[in-house]
Amino acid sequence: MAMIRNAPPTAHGRTYTASSLKEVAFPLGGIGTGTVSLGGRGQLRDWEIFNRPAKGKNLPCTFFALWCRPEGEVPIARILERRLLPPFVADRGLSPWAVSGLPRLEEARFRGTYPVAEIAFADGTLPLEVELEAFTPFTPFDDRTSGMPVAIFLWRLRNPGPRAIEATLVYSQLNPIGYDGVEALLRGRRHPMFGGNLNRWSSEGGMRGIRMSRPEFDQTHPGAGSLAIATPWPRVTFSEHWERSGWFDDIQNFWDDLRADGRLPETAEGTPSPAGETDVGSLGALARIESGATVEIPFVLTWHLPNLVNYWGPLETLPGQSVVGQRMRNWYTCQWPDAWAVAKEVCGRLPELTAETRAFRDELFASTLPEPVLDAVSSQMSIIRTTTCLRTEDGRLHGFEGCDDNAGCCPMNCTHVWNYEQTLAFLFPQLERSVRLTDYESNTLPDGEQKFRTMLPLLPDVVWNYVAAADGQMGTLLKLYREWLISSDDVYLRRLWPQAKKTLAFAWKHWDPDRDGVMEGEQHNTYDIEFYGPNTMCGALYLGALRAAEEMARYLGDPDADEYARIYASGRERLDRELWNGEYYRQTVRSPGPNESLKHLYPARHPSAIREGEPEPRYQYGPGCLADQLLGQWFAHVVGLGHLLPQEHVREAARSIYRHNFRPSVEAHESCQRAYAVNEEAALLLCTWPHGGRPRYPFPYADECWTGSEYAVAGLLLYEGCVEEGVAVVQGVRARHDGIRRNPWNEFECGNHYARALSSWALLLALSGYEYHGPRGHLRFAPQVAQDDFRCLFTAGRAWGSVTIRGTRAALAIRGGELRLRTLEIGSRTYSFDPPRTVAAGEVIEVG
Amino acid sequence: MAMIRNAPPTAHGRTYTASSLKEVAFPLGGIGTGTVSLGGRGQLRDWEIFNRPAKGKNLPCTFFALWCRPEGEVPIARILERRLLPPFVADRGLSPWAVSGLPRLEEARFRGTYPVAEIAFADGTLPLEVELEAFTPFTPFDDRTSGMPVAIFLWRLRNPGPRAIEATLVYSQLNPIGYDGVEALLRGRRHPMFGGNLNRWSSEGGMRGIRMSRPEFDQTHPGAGSLAIATPWPRVTFSEHWERSGWFDDIQNFWDDLRADGRLPETAEGTPSPAGETDVGSLGALARIESGATVEIPFVLTWHLPNLVNYWGPLETLPGQSVVGQRMRNWYTCQWPDAWAVAKEVCGRLPELTAETRAFRDELFASTLPEPVLDAVSSQMSIIRTTTCLRTEDGRLHGFEGCDDNAGCCPMNCTHVWNYEQTLAFLFPQLERSVRLTDYESNTLPDGEQKFRTMLPLLPDVVWNYVAAADGQMGTLLKLYREWLISSDDVYLRRLWPQAKKTLAFAWKHWDPDRDGVMEGEQHNTYDIEFYGPNTMCGALYLGALRAAEEMARYLGDPDADEYARIYASGRERLDRELWNGEYYRQTVRSPGPNESLKHLYPARHPSAIREGEPEPRYQYGPGCLADQLLGQWFAHVVGLGHLLPQEHVREAARSIYRHNFRPSVEAHESCQRAYAVNEEAALLLCTWPHGGRPRYPFPYADECWTGSEYAVAGLLLYEGCVEEGVAVVQGVRARHDGIRRNPWNEFECGNHYARALSSWALLLALSGYEYHGPRGHLRFAPQVAQDDFRCLFTAGRAWGSVTIRGTRAALAIRGGELRLRTLEIGSRTYSFDPPRTVAAGEVIEVG
Repeated sequence: MAMIRNAPPTAHGRTYTASSLKEVAFPLGGIGTGTVSLGGRGQLRDWEIFNRPAKGKNLPCTFFALWCRPEGEVPIARILERRLLPPFVADRGLSPWAVSGLPRLEEARFRGTYPVAEIAFADGTLPLEVELEAFTPFTPFDDRTSGMPVAIFLWRLRNPGPRAIEATLVYSQLNPIGYDGVEALLRGRRHPMFGGNLNRWSSEGGMRGIRMSRPEFDQTHPGAGSLAIATPWPRVTFSEHWERSGWFDDIQNFWDDLRADGRLPETAEGTPSPAGETDVGSLGALARIESGATVEIPFVLTWHLPNLVNYWGPLETLPGQSVVGQRMRNWYTCQWPDAWAVAKEVCGRLPELTAETRAFRDELFASTLPEPVLDAVSSQMSIIRTTTCLRTEDGRLHGFEGCDDNAGCCPMNCTHVWNYEQTLAFLFPQLERSVRLTDYESNTLPDGEQKFRTMLPLLPDVVWNYVAAADGQMGTLLKLYREWLISSDDVYLRRLWPQAKKTLAFAWKHWDPDRDGVMEGEQHNTYDIEFYGPNTMCGALYLGALRAAEEMARYLGDPDADEYARIYASGRERLDRELWNGEYYRQTVRSPGPNESLKHLYPARHPSAIREGEPEPRYQYGPGCLADQLLGQWFAHVVGLGHLLPQEHVREAARSIYRHNFRPSVEAHESCQRAYAVNEEAALLLCTWPHGGRPRYPFPYADECWTGSEYAVAGLLLYEGCVEEGVAVVQGVRARHDGIRRNPWNEFECGNHYARALSSWALLLALSGYEYHGPRGHLRFAPQVAQDDFRCLFTAGRAWGSVTIRGTRAALAIRGGELRLRTLEIGSRTYSFDPPRTVAAGEVIEVG
Repeated sequence: MAMIRNAPPTAHGRTYTASSLKEVAFPLGGIGTGTVSLGGRGQLRDWEIFNRPAKGKNLPCTFFALWCRPEGEVPIARILERRLLPPFVADRGLSPWAVSGLPRLEEARFRGTYPVAEIAFADGTLPLEVELEAFTPFTPFDDRTSGMPVAIFLWRLRNPGPRAIEATLVYSQLNPIGYDGVEALLRGRRHPMFGGNLNRWSSEGGMRGIRMSRPEFDQTHPGAGSLAIATPWPRVTFSEHWERSGWFDDIQNFWDDLRADGRLPETAEGTPSPAGETDVGSLGALARIESGATVEIPFVLTWHLPNLVNYWGPLETLPGQSVVGQRMRNWYTCQWPDAWAVAKEVCGRLPELTAETRAFRDELFASTLPEPVLDAVSSQMSIIRTTTCLRTEDGRLHGFEGCDDNAGCCPMNCTHVWNYEQTLAFLFPQLERSVRLTDYESNTLPDGEQKFRTMLPLLPDVVWNYVAAADGQMGTLLKLYREWLISSDDVYLRRLWPQAKKTLAFAWKHWDPDRDGVMEGEQHNTYDIEFYGPNTMCGALYLGALRAAEEMARYLGDPDADEYARIYASGRERLDRELWNGEYYRQTVRSPGPNESLKHLYPARHPSAIREGEPEPRYQYGPGCLADQLLGQWFAHVVGLGHLLPQEHVREAARSIYRHNFRPSVEAHESCQRAYAVNEEAALLLCTWPHGGRPRYPFPYADECWTGSEYAVAGLLLYEGCVEEGVAVVQGVRARHDGIRRNPWNEFECGNHYARALSSWALLLALSGYEYHGPRGHLRFAPQVAQDDFRCLFTAGRAWGSVTIRGTRAALAIRGGELRLRTLEIGSRTYSFDPPRTVAAGEVIEVG
């Protein structure tokens, strides 16, 4: 069919150059492997592979360099990075171990289209044109391929000149085995942590490289493991280890050696480094590049650091239940024996892995969605492959809320923050399902109370010792429903349903004792405080949970379905009647009665909202316009449950949030809280009081803006047809992440790579008018944009591909997996397939 | 006399605005008191008053704010800082404790003319024009006034509008007593270090303010002390402590309270803070500013933190001699009982202190010296009032080489780094003389070996356990000579002379055993390695030491003067004959014989230069062109000893250094060492090999550039009449410190505020053609620039003032102290006074 075209060879995406390269750090690494980031200048930064976040931790003596000599001319050598950007401040001068004093390239243009980053360098003196493409293999649903501990670097060198050029492209890498991810390595190879580090030159099959290890380490040592640098390139030169000498002799000797003839010593001796220092290995690819020719030289960096030690807590535990210090094993290290084995697989599968990763990226960016939406969806997808997510030996995925610069933050699987997350659920649903197992089988008590954080490792009867979260607990029911819709896995649903039911029953015990569908009790929530009295923030999630429970119960033949429906209907009516103020849904603040608070039973994390002499609890929003007031509605849209509250009120509320809370500039905004937008930046505030009534001490975070929440509001706006407004909100967020002010691949909130921003996937769903009901074999698209020439990536079940809609014709091209459909709804038309139609990768369904 | 004019009311100086404000940090504080810096945006940053450097350590909840209400209008409130500059990156968001989310002013223009900083703010919505002038009192020679632990803030508010404006200008300050200067205060007032902190409102005489202390602390506690904020302004409002509540309630309450009516609670209760938290005090000045009127509102911040604990070493000690952990007392804390007493004195003397400080600044900047030279001289003068310098209870001054971000670096009084320093010697000669007492009385062994670092506290027979430095030890003799010339203190000279003689005798034992005036032995030096064989770097310092010794010996009637003269003449002849290559002075590398090295007797700091199988020692410069090759000559010029080597060779060598080592851009420079200049920045390299012969491993630092060394070379060029070249070098340095790339008030080398940059004072001396010989009552000026309309600040003995030269007429206006002259040389004319003429402050000598 003519209308199905290939995506353009280089997809679009924002580019960054000059000063906007400063904050760029594009994470490379697989699911649960940690990352190393590619900086905007082409440098490797933020080495977060050592089983903890490590922003700002750089490995010394680790860089790419190029030597080249046009025939008959003098050679030239450069560090393959764009020149340093100011400030140039360091108490002892810029580090020699970062080769700060060696010449670099003049300019770079960075294009990041996650999962692929590309840099085009420019330099007036270099006789070669240099480009870098870097990525970690990525394929939806394939968690093994997408979970490889590897960074792949494809260097393209083009010779635009008249004469052939001899070139050596060298990758130098510190052997970091034993590094704790915490210390600043200020003295290059030298640190008391190091010693006995072993670099071994190896050439095996179609691959050459350096294996880095530390044989003396016991396998249970937290730092045990290996690392490798390798290339399938046939002609190589290498230095197994730099000169083991003091001062700057090691770098000087390496540089002078390379500088002279483009060759390194090529001596393989395999001796370990002395105590107190490690070694640097260098691997160079030799190429002769004829006039007009281009070569593409691949390098891979792989790592294998098995031992994940819980340093993070959580700390509120019952006596004897602390998990701090307990050791786990990373799932990825159970898939390969060591880093060298990963490198072998990667080099062996390189064309396939490259093609698959590019195919996903190209398809995503070939979409006709507005640019800021694509930017948000793609860039924040990276969160599932940062240190925010762990994957333990049992195959389960776990997530922090986000990561402080050097430690995971707010462990683990926090149900209320992960309420906003959608990306993982649609790209790697099997991993998402594993979190529900943990939610319901490890964290749900017999009375249905669900602990909203997870203790790791998972141990029988060990749970976090803290109050339940109303929003998180209700959201989890919506998630379970989603996982079932996506997987069509009845066994899974039946397994978790009894526990899931209990969590609703718990709501009737503590939040809605009169079962009228309105939560009134002490509702701990994602603002780290408790709401008292009816509100739609927790309330709409409760309605959504009731609807989801009703759907699942009916499917399973559970007679409680009717009771869920009754409570839902009652709640919907009362919430709307009591809280609708004509513009949006407010909160009714209600002081808790004596003994109504559960919170005092738990360790103090934050001060109480209840103060002697104050008539109302602190930290409420009352008549305010809360950004998250219809979070439950947003989630209901994602899972196709329709309007939980009257459609016209939902739509008006969405518009009101935009009208009152979106600021094209925050320069006049006054906040005594944390700042995520400043000066003339645009932001959507968590809460405003357009008609007064702001409490003296509003809930914490009220005056902040959170990207994850902004995306959820934007998603709601899009679902409600307010496309311009929704895109404006997204545009505001992404404009704040411009490389000068913030890293486009790191939206931080309470931690870097904050999970809440994974709400961005729903932007794509909303604009596609996407709905998928696996058990029914139903798929729907009803584009909100570019209706006459629409194209978008989608996932459904375990298939992914693209939908293309032109006028009355539509085509679904399956790029991976298999899709089974009974009905396909495109806009207002429904196409039925009887018997159901099954399409596999490479196949296309055309309708219209 | 008409030609003596007042300096313009606001002196010139570089200004910084927008992005160039980013790195600006202007140190406020007295000699040996530590500092807090005024950031370019008007924020207080880098709190280094807690007895250690603390770059990047900021105190929470500490800022100025302005509330104002034009009659009949709504009030407006702003944080008195320029808007934040990117990046806006922080793992948990920009801190509420830095009031990051409160509105600031649109733009600022920062003018730093050390010791005075001025900021002019601009804001389109604020009805007042706001300016800040900040300084710590400064008067040459007056070490007590210049050593006050205070930062003075003069806020000027002008009302350009038609209506009167009510205004409140509030200074909020954390009570930081107990802060260790190391921890990051991430939770505002809350940290386990705090508790029992006491803020007390006080009104005494003409001053009101808040005294901050921690009564429970034992006086020997390292964190013991006090702090005060105060104002002589009569109408005030205050908050003794912010609400002691959680979340953001404290800031919210403060802000809302101020916002409402410009008044704070004004409750004085004097209760200490609970455990785990400290208090914030706020002091507001109330003003009614009529249309067109300006008010100037002064605030002072004072501190008193007596206990200086040696955390720094040095670490190479003889058994039982470690001084780490020993407690000393800061001199300044012996001058005032507490911070409140300092504030009282400052407020009482405010007009005088302001006038004196402005007078010095105005005089310095009224000079006709080239702008980059004034910039270098004035900005680097600040080093003597940063954490690089300490002053102990005994009144002595001690200096690190510089300061790492959170610890002093390379303790203490390092003779070879301080060889370059001239500023302290000419501005506070009594403090400089105290260092010679330490050099000769504490660090010189009976055989004349002088330890080049000082152990603190000074204890009998406790010395650093490391090899002597040839350059440092020789330079110290030149310094002694300088101190005598400046002070005319014969008693002082006679006291130290016997020790000083011994240090020359030591040179004959180890560096020049044949006493031919050429050092050939193992010469440890400022590059942290040893030179082997003749070189003018150590050699010219040796020649200078011999000449200085000869002068002092002759004055004292010591018959060894002739021997010093003989050796000098021999050395001069041989160095010139053997090392002059027609362009500059090279090194003859000579391998040490067996047992010739003293270094092996000491703990290893760095690897040996002697390697088995290598014919020559590493880390030499051989035929290279060394920037510091005539450092001794430069010093000889400073102390009026004339040419140590043939004038034409000295001049040609200076020119050659410029020609070979100065790079208008370092973009093509390849260095494997530390980087102090990158990209297109200009720099003068420490060493180059214009005719080849670069050793495979040249001495460390050879490929670097050091501002202190650049200034010394520039000074030599100026002394040799190469004004354009000298100024170009200075211009290169200062262009690197532009507020975007580096802080203009922090030239770092091996540490911030690196002492070597105090060589900059000699730029002023050289351009003035200044020579002063106190004992002879001789003063000379022979300007190298603006000869026909010259004006420059000078110091001589204990007097300071300005010299003005127009055509054949000259005038010396004394601004402070008293000067006694027998001869005054202006250019080629000499004026004699018989009897000697004594001029006091306010008087003028006119000649011509």
